[in-house]
Amino acid sequence: MKALVYEGPGKKTWTEVPDPAITDPRDAIIQVDTTTICGTDLHILGGDVPEVKPGRILGHEAVGTVVDVGDAVTELRPGDRVLASCISACGRCHYCRRARYGQCLGGGGWILGHRVDGVQAQYARLPLADLSTHRLTPEIGDEAAVLLADILPTSYEVGVLAGRVKPGDTVVVVGAGPIGLAAILTARLYSPANVIAIDTAEARLQAARRFGADVTASPEDDPSEVVRSLTGGFGADVVIEAVGLPETFELCATLIRPCGHLANIGVHGRSATLHLEELWIRDVTITTGLVDTFSTPDLLTMLSGGRLDTGPMITHRFALDDIEQAYEVFADPARSGALKVALNRS
Amino acid sequence: MKALVYEGPGKKTWTEVPDPAITDPRDAIIQVDTTTICGTDLHILGGDVPEVKPGRILGHEAVGTVVDVGDAVTELRPGDRVLASCISACGRCHYCRRARYGQCLGGGGWILGHRVDGVQAQYARLPLADLSTHRLTPEIGDEAAVLLADILPTSYEVGVLAGRVKPGDTVVVVGAGPIGLAAILTARLYSPANVIAIDTAEARLQAARRFGADVTASPEDDPSEVVRSLTGGFGADVVIEAVGLPETFELCATLIRPCGHLANIGVHGRSATLHLEELWIRDVTITTGLVDTFSTPDLLTMLSGGRLDTGPMITHRFALDDIEQAYEVFADPARSGALKVALNRS
Amino acid sequence: MKALVYEGPGKKTWTEVPDPAITDPRDAIIQVDTTTICGTDLHILGGDVPEVKPGRILGHEAVGTVVDVGDAVTELRPGDRVLASCISACGRCHYCRRARYGQCLGGGGWILGHRVDGVQAQYARLPLADLSTHRLTPEIGDEAAVLLADILPTSYEVGVLAGRVKPGDTVVVVGAGPIGLAAILTARLYSPANVIAIDTAEARLQAARRFGADVTASPEDDPSEVVRSLTGGFGADVVIEAVGLPETFELCATLIRPCGHLANIGVHGRSATLHLEELWIRDVTITTGLVDTFSTPDLLTMLSGGRLDTGPMITHRFALDDIEQAYEVFADPARSGALKVALNRS
Amino acid sequence: MKALVYEGPGKKTWTEVPDPAITDPRDAIIQVDTTTICGTDLHILGGDVPEVKPGRILGHEAVGTVVDVGDAVTELRPGDRVLASCISACGRCHYCRRARYGQCLGGGGWILGHRVDGVQAQYARLPLADLSTHRLTPEIGDEAAVLLADILPTSYEVGVLAGRVKPGDTVVVVGAGPIGLAAILTARLYSPANVIAIDTAEARLQAARRFGADVTASPEDDPSEVVRSLTGGFGADVVIEAVGLPETFELCATLIRPCGHLANIGVHGRSATLHLEELWIRDVTITTGLVDTFSTPDLLTMLSGGRLDTGPMITHRFALDDIEQAYEVFADPARSGALKVALNRS
Repeated sequence: MKALVYEGPGKKTWTEVPDPAITDPRDAIIQVDTTTICGTDLHILGGDVPEVKPGRILGHEAVGTVVDVGDAVTELRPGDRVLASCISACGRCHYCRRARYGQCLGGGGWILGHRVDGVQAQYARLPLADLSTHRLTPEIGDEAAVLLADILPTSYEVGVLAGRVKPGDTVVVVGAGPIGLAAILTARLYSPANVIAIDTAEARLQAARRFGADVTASPEDDPSEVVRSLTGGFGADVVIEAVGLPETFELCATLIRPCGHLANIGVHGRSATLHLEELWIRDVTITTGLVDTFSTPDLLTMLSGGRLDTGPMITHRFALDDIEQAYEVFADPARSGALKVALNRS
Repeated sequence: MKALVYEGPGKKTWTEVPDPAITDPRDAIIQVDTTTICGTDLHILGGDVPEVKPGRILGHEAVGTVVDVGDAVTELRPGDRVLASCISACGRCHYCRRARYGQCLGGGGWILGHRVDGVQAQYARLPLADLSTHRLTPEIGDEAAVLLADILPTSYEVGVLAGRVKPGDTVVVVGAGPIGLAAILTARLYSPANVIAIDTAEARLQAARRFGADVTASPEDDPSEVVRSLTGGFGADVVIEAVGLPETFELCATLIRPCGHLANIGVHGRSATLHLEELWIRDVTITTGLVDTFSTPDLLTMLSGGRLDTGPMITHRFALDDIEQAYEVFADPARSGALKVALNRS
Repeated sequence: MKALVYEGPGKKTWTEVPDPAITDPRDAIIQVDTTTICGTDLHILGGDVPEVKPGRILGHEAVGTVVDVGDAVTELRPGDRVLASCISACGRCHYCRRARYGQCLGGGGWILGHRVDGVQAQYARLPLADLSTHRLTPEIGDEAAVLLADILPTSYEVGVLAGRVKPGDTVVVVGAGPIGLAAILTARLYSPANVIAIDTAEARLQAARRFGADVTASPEDDPSEVVRSLTGGFGADVVIEAVGLPETFELCATLIRPCGHLANIGVHGRSATLHLEELWIRDVTITTGLVDTFSTPDLLTMLSGGRLDTGPMITHRFALDDIEQAYEVFADPARSGALKVALNRS
Repeated sequence: MKALVYEGPGKKTWTEVPDPAITDPRDAIIQVDTTTICGTDLHILGGDVPEVKPGRILGHEAVGTVVDVGDAVTELRPGDRVLASCISACGRCHYCRRARYGQCLGGGGWILGHRVDGVQAQYARLPLADLSTHRLTPEIGDEAAVLLADILPTSYEVGVLAGRVKPGDTVVVVGAGPIGLAAILTARLYSPANVIAIDTAEARLQAARRFGADVTASPEDDPSEVVRSLTGGFGADVVIEAVGLPETFELCATLIRPCGHLANIGVHGRSATLHLEELWIRDVTITTGLVDTFSTPDLLTMLSGGRLDTGPMITHRFALDDIEQAYEVFADPARSGALKVALNRS
């Protein structure tokens, strides 16, 4: 089969590799019908994720069709159409028993395209398949579903749920890239009074408004003043960090009201300064997290019932064979306007 | 009457001042029967709390007897024996309606010995008296009660409850001064499997063992290894910061397990470094807070029913007239071994 | 002034009575601008609420203008436009400190039109005015606001919040009168996957669809089967009882899934049968409650921001002088189609 | 091997049967080292559990040694000493993903000694073994551990946790049989101010005091008055039903304070009367439940660390071969004084 193989920092090739095979009775093999590219894939290519070694097939988001299952797989049969989640789970360890699958100690967590070969390929092996896949009903399309492999549950669990968004809240989302937009979309499920998006790029702020932001601002617009003016001087109930830089995290910390939440989704490479001399007295809650995907079944229910419109998230479509071109488009959103790209089996 | 008056950095005098009088219909006047000294009082004397101006009577912890009440006071009558809480509350503002009295917008919050005259005096005016005092039943002694003015609810609410201590947890308390010891004592209410105290002073670690710590360690003993060895390598479920320095906060952050809580009680004067490059993926929750004293009635119930033994907390007793000497003892715990000092009306 | 006076079972008169006056420093007097009629008022007239004695002015829902305040009132001034909540609160008792105002022990709770004179009058005295009223901003109209005196917070707190409605849930509301419709409307704030309304009257089911029910059914349509077919056989996540009869409560109990919630809003006059022989093993949670109105500020925020459209709830409008005619219309919804009626000062 | 076989209502025999064998790759076989008898076993023998057919081996609580495992078992190896939980779990279904193992849809739930052969035998087959067993560390004895197969997690999860016991609460436990005593023991983990036990038998009330009840009463002692006098007239924060009769459930409902919890553990065969005409306004929460055993790892941690003393629970010891005699003793506690009986491999 063909697959996108990482060949060291800056290098990747869509090339012929051996077909995947079942190596553990809990494995399943899928034919990949739709996959997509994540900002994390760009980080890997940038050399920032050293545990990914050359030779690794990339990708951790897919919709596919089961072609084979191991002897211990009970929930799947060949022919099933499934969502392959970015998180695999053994279902048995300390963390899996608490539905904290992202921290799985039994061989799961984020492994696809990271510690084992991923899904940017014609076929893929899914370890621990029973708990790492979700069967899809026919009314859910491939492109809608593939967004539930990572980006939607990440924004919802690590941003909206960890941040405890409630009806009537004022929510600020710092960063209006795909993850931030998904946070806006899923924050809307809780009917906040105001959603404020902050980003440096006007195109992203336009997208934020399409996804449901009521107010948008650039960091240069004095976001504190924007938030204060909308909240009678109180500050935001929930601030979601969706960038991953010290300065954006620090901006978030200035926008929370006393008793508010700062939910960090961003992937950080450097430490930030925490102004405890101001925050110690303000009753704030700061959370971090890797997605667990415990919410994926609920998100599928909402998608299926028309409660979530993820359509505008996919801006570009490619045949899977054209994945190298898709990376170029995805890696240059300022020029391409790309949010998420869909790669479909032709 | 006589009162302890702040006269600028480093200076205070036990001196004659006018008796307090009711200035608002919600005020009460108490005769102070027992008061104590808080680490915050030392900070004020150090000049670190600039909003406290010379002339201010210090102190925010007292047990007293009501001698007069304003026309709008409904819960108190002259002769009532009451606990004067460190937090006053209007009961009507956004935060008071949510029992977040520490953030009161209606003239309350931490005001005694701070924005209005305090209780290190023979008499004191208590603003917003109905919501800022608790009537005491006879079986509760003055010295036990005065610890519920600040130190017990602070440790319990901002440490134990915000940190979500649960039965079976491993809890680390960094800092075994009075606040840390109170955190150990109130963490015990939730039957954690292990309480680990960390401090630099062996005398404080001994006190920690008396208050219920199972294991104690100095920062030089490699606390991470101590915690790991007790938790099968997982780390602590809850880490409570009870010092207020960047380095102790940063130590705390290294001791939390994935999905764990860091509850900051310490009063910080400087910012800390938050290692988001490690923490972003570990599902941690960090909380800060000023006490609200919503738990004071529950703590009084526990004290009254013998569920809390605060006795060993008070190490020294003085007549109120000897308060200047009491400050010397309290300010030098390394030499005096002082935890809390009681100042009793003679 | 004129007021609607209860004169014993079945009798009421719009008649001249003395103007109300301040009798406690915490009172306020309002001119009533808009009021409405509640099902509870009909119960009182039916003689079902024996603590209401002849001579009592009825009504517990109003929007008005402050004309006088007692000396201890701090939050209101003459001229303020306010919502008078159905629940009064002392703000100081055990329950008020926990925001459970409906259970106030300090003279509050449901008192208006019940234990003290109510608001179906040209003027009204509001005891404990600071915590029992909410100032209104200009963009909120009288008729929208008056629905937040009782019906909206009741449905939201006792139905939606106590029932823990979550995004993706299937919610059943049994009873599509005004309270049930308000439950549908406020359940929508949490983006459930399905809202199913059950009622005997087709007109009410039509109203339910206008307020956001996805599916409606009569009790004769085998509601269990309707719920099962929409939930893959599981049953409802949340069932809200909005009628107040044993048979509707018992119907609700058959519709809950294992681990589901039954939130009772209905006012019951008789006991129901609880089939513990079936329910003991099903992990159900059943809640009851009187409204606390802790959510009223949040609901006002949502109203003000356009997140709640209560418009279709008011079906008939009258001058306050025509209140007796309004009772006739409200008491016969089968004929009049009335949901809520607005009575406006002319 | 020998096993206790149910032979229809009223009949059971300790008799020779074929050894169990692995029939599914997720099975394990254990040698039974210690087992016990549950009130449910008596119900089965009484003919009250019709899905149990003659020929079934009884028992759902055991400690044993693994002798064989199926190919899909990853957590166990022959020689491991394990607790066999009363609840089996597939780990993959809707309920298992939420740690609600008691409601497992994938072949688990309460199956041992019910839908498949049980553990009152020399050997037993444990289906879904990875999630249905817990490895034991050496410091935990067999008799302490076997109480964590059912009775401790049931009382803790369905009584104490569902009832939300908190420090300072007043907790009433109605029924001081083994389950009620375990509820008293585990309620103590949360430091309630008062635990009140109610039972008809003085011997059980004596046991309740040994397990930590502060106050005991017979139903004839006017329990409402006992509760009121201890709570300043408020009523109990949490009432735990541990009998399973309509009259005890109805008693519980009279003892809850407004905003309190009634947690039902009892197994009921008949419906009860729910006095909604009194309860609708009192903000009560009523919960039911089958144990999920999600808390078993935490309880093992507490047992291992000396935080739980289950010792006095086992009152009689027998060799496994004498199980028929053990049933006689267990079935007649009024005469034997039996709480739990241990059956040990000789």
